[in-house]
Amino acid sequence: MLFRQIYEEGLAQASYLIGCQASGEAVVVDPRRDIDVYLAEAERNKLRIVAVTETHIHADYLSGARELAKVTGAKLYLSDEGDENWKYRGLEGFDYQLLKDGDEFRVGNVRIKALHTPGHTPEHLSFLVADGAVTEEPLLFLTGDFVFVGDVGRPDLLEEAAGLLGTAEPGARRMFKSLKEKFLTLPDHVQVWPGHGAGSACGKALGAVPSSTVGYERRFAWWADYLAKDDEEAFVRALLSGQPEAPSYFKEMKRLNRDGMPILGGIPHPGRLTKAQFDRYLREGAILVDTRDKFAFAGGHLKGSINLPAGKGFSTWAGWLLPYDRPLVLLASPQQLEELTRQLIRIGLDDVRGYVPGLEGYAEGELETVPQLTAAELKAKWERGEVVVLDVRGADEYAQGHIPGALNLHAGRVMKNLGRIPKDKPVVLHCLGGDRSSTAVSALLSAGFTNVINLTGGIRAWQEQGFPTEKGAAREAVKA
Amino acid sequence: MLFRQIYEEGLAQASYLIGCQASGEAVVVDPRRDIDVYLAEAERNKLRIVAVTETHIHADYLSGARELAKVTGAKLYLSDEGDENWKYRGLEGFDYQLLKDGDEFRVGNVRIKALHTPGHTPEHLSFLVADGAVTEEPLLFLTGDFVFVGDVGRPDLLEEAAGLLGTAEPGARRMFKSLKEKFLTLPDHVQVWPGHGAGSACGKALGAVPSSTVGYERRFAWWADYLAKDDEEAFVRALLSGQPEAPSYFKEMKRLNRDGMPILGGIPHPGRLTKAQFDRYLREGAILVDTRDKFAFAGGHLKGSINLPAGKGFSTWAGWLLPYDRPLVLLASPQQLEELTRQLIRIGLDDVRGYVPGLEGYAEGELETVPQLTAAELKAKWERGEVVVLDVRGADEYAQGHIPGALNLHAGRVMKNLGRIPKDKPVVLHCLGGDRSSTAVSALLSAGFTNVINLTGGIRAWQEQGFPTEKGAAREAVKA
Repeated sequence: MLFRQIYEEGLAQASYLIGCQASGEAVVVDPRRDIDVYLAEAERNKLRIVAVTETHIHADYLSGARELAKVTGAKLYLSDEGDENWKYRGLEGFDYQLLKDGDEFRVGNVRIKALHTPGHTPEHLSFLVADGAVTEEPLLFLTGDFVFVGDVGRPDLLEEAAGLLGTAEPGARRMFKSLKEKFLTLPDHVQVWPGHGAGSACGKALGAVPSSTVGYERRFAWWADYLAKDDEEAFVRALLSGQPEAPSYFKEMKRLNRDGMPILGGIPHPGRLTKAQFDRYLREGAILVDTRDKFAFAGGHLKGSINLPAGKGFSTWAGWLLPYDRPLVLLASPQQLEELTRQLIRIGLDDVRGYVPGLEGYAEGELETVPQLTAAELKAKWERGEVVVLDVRGADEYAQGHIPGALNLHAGRVMKNLGRIPKDKPVVLHCLGGDRSSTAVSALLSAGFTNVINLTGGIRAWQEQGFPTEKGAAREAVKA
Repeated sequence: MLFRQIYEEGLAQASYLIGCQASGEAVVVDPRRDIDVYLAEAERNKLRIVAVTETHIHADYLSGARELAKVTGAKLYLSDEGDENWKYRGLEGFDYQLLKDGDEFRVGNVRIKALHTPGHTPEHLSFLVADGAVTEEPLLFLTGDFVFVGDVGRPDLLEEAAGLLGTAEPGARRMFKSLKEKFLTLPDHVQVWPGHGAGSACGKALGAVPSSTVGYERRFAWWADYLAKDDEEAFVRALLSGQPEAPSYFKEMKRLNRDGMPILGGIPHPGRLTKAQFDRYLREGAILVDTRDKFAFAGGHLKGSINLPAGKGFSTWAGWLLPYDRPLVLLASPQQLEELTRQLIRIGLDDVRGYVPGLEGYAEGELETVPQLTAAELKAKWERGEVVVLDVRGADEYAQGHIPGALNLHAGRVMKNLGRIPKDKPVVLHCLGGDRSSTAVSALLSAGFTNVINLTGGIRAWQEQGFPTEKGAAREAVKA
């Protein structure tokens, strides 16, 4: 048996290729949408991908399962658990098999058994993998967003991201049951390989170790004691507290992953735009995504553009802040273009019309700059009540210490909450160090705000000067 | 805790970076010699490498431990087990600490405990790793060449590679004891991360799964039953049978890894040679290593050059066939040059004087070609007794079926056994499909043989035509 974790850092997302060298066949579990990585890995190991499966209907990225099945002709294995809201649709034209709890399939000598493990989502499956060439006993447990290293999947994602009220607590109770009746009944020595690593929004305490074991999690995960004491109530309370904000694009991902997404057939390569094309696309409503760093953007950018710096967080910020119904144009270096395009298609932002490598020759007249204040300047204005302070960090960070009187709205949520941003006073945005607030300021500028200002160096600079902060949750919690 | 396996496919060699995010410190275990990969991985994760260790004195590659310690100023942790032959030397100028069974050190919250696990080598340590931020109980066991996935390290390496007779069986008995008293006393849930994966010459049945667990190996490894029955004799017999040939450069690696190797301070970049430089180096005794594929080499090469095609096996073949006391010149494409240079320095072949991208402009007059026979042509000559057949596969492959009357000498061993190659008749070399025999023919041509011929398509072509083969071991076993 051959086993490979294929990890995508931007979304902290893990997929798996499992092959049987004897039969030359392979299965891919939880593929992302730019599937060439699986084709290459299979070819390098002289394997043919004959099966594609996924643990659940993902919310944080667009599944590559259908794309991979279409390109390779592989058979799709998908969950048949959960109620009507969680049934896959649009599978006509695919060779597929639906899986219920306990169902198995083989790929050469590799045996894969699906266990229904709801909690994160109602239809969630986890896969017990046995290397039949050695034994029929399981070697690995691919847990998707059920059990992470040191954590479990969050059951509140849809309530949090899509406002589906009342789904979090029942999910937490299902999670307790899945842990008790499925996970903890497995032998200690079974390896646990999850669907996400540290940095994912799908859990709160994910470790930066790629895998774990049933026995280690049973003993040392934060939830171990609750299960040992069979204390469901305390488990549910603990699980639902302190979960981070979830991006609003998650709702869109759920729908596309359940009902079907466009098949790309390859990685798109946006072309370089002429000045005439550039002008026309923007005139027709395209959004210019400026992927330079925050300093370059602050120093001069095209009015109406939004600043999402190239880097690990690009996918997530794009998901937070870009609409799904408008075409995009990128301001990006040609070297970064392919990676940026991949990061966009991974979350279904496919409509990239082209790119420009810089503003020279494209932008006429004066460029817009980002208004900035230093901590000392803000202090003076804040004392005189001349400004509103908007803390764009997460609610948890805010509660642990914020500038007295500051409002709180997660940077990713500003575009969906434009009505909450005061217009009658200058609004100074800040985060911890200045990255998130720069992005949020750029979004508000692009939305036409003229009274937004960035705090240089964030609250860190404020605190370093010994300026006051206070603890406590925000008066108004914004859920989506 | 952060945990990364860093895998080098050419030598199927695994090293590890373990970091404590809280303290910003990291330790590297079993680094290879081109250490920039660790520096980059540490920097990407905002970690500082403060400790470097290794499980044992490696034989199959040159350790990067001293290189990494020198460049980073990190402290070296090295084994103090084994007899005088296995004591590290030349450690003056390094900050180092010697480890005995049970010794521990910490890197931030990460706790590393050394267990003495002899068998593969007498001084071998394995490392129990605990994530102190979670628990002081171990999470991982870094086993080096003690326990692999599905296998254990071979105890016969020095006997096999360096002719140190009488070391294999005592090693096998130590391995039994280490498994019984160290490995099997650990909890089932502890993860096992070894020093090699499938394809390494350091064991015989290594799995293509990156990690295992104590419990899985305890139950399902080939050696599990012998240990369960406490049957040392049967274990020793099983362990010593069917081990593959080990390259002769292993002996040189052992010495350098124990006594010290040159510190490079960076990856060398061989320059492109002028015709005058090229001629001078060859005149002065440099070997021209032709890294083109076997077809290009067969079609025309410079007399005296040796054909080691660029690819995964380049390191190993270079170790088998190149001498350590002569400078090298590469015939290589500029795109592959860096990777080839890395593959050479990984086994201590540092003296690369430069490269040429092709033969045009460098080789005058007629090029030498490789004499070839088809299976049908060989059959006719073989029936008339006009040729000697030399099977250059491993002894195990030979025993399972060979051309009747063929001699057997592993392709990697031809240069150390020139006296065994008949000179009075044409000698037809073959392997399974033609790769290894092409390399061996090129080596013999470079050594001045004029009577060597390659069988096109190897024994596979012979068998496809229905020509006869027979089973059984070779009359004469060549050990080094």
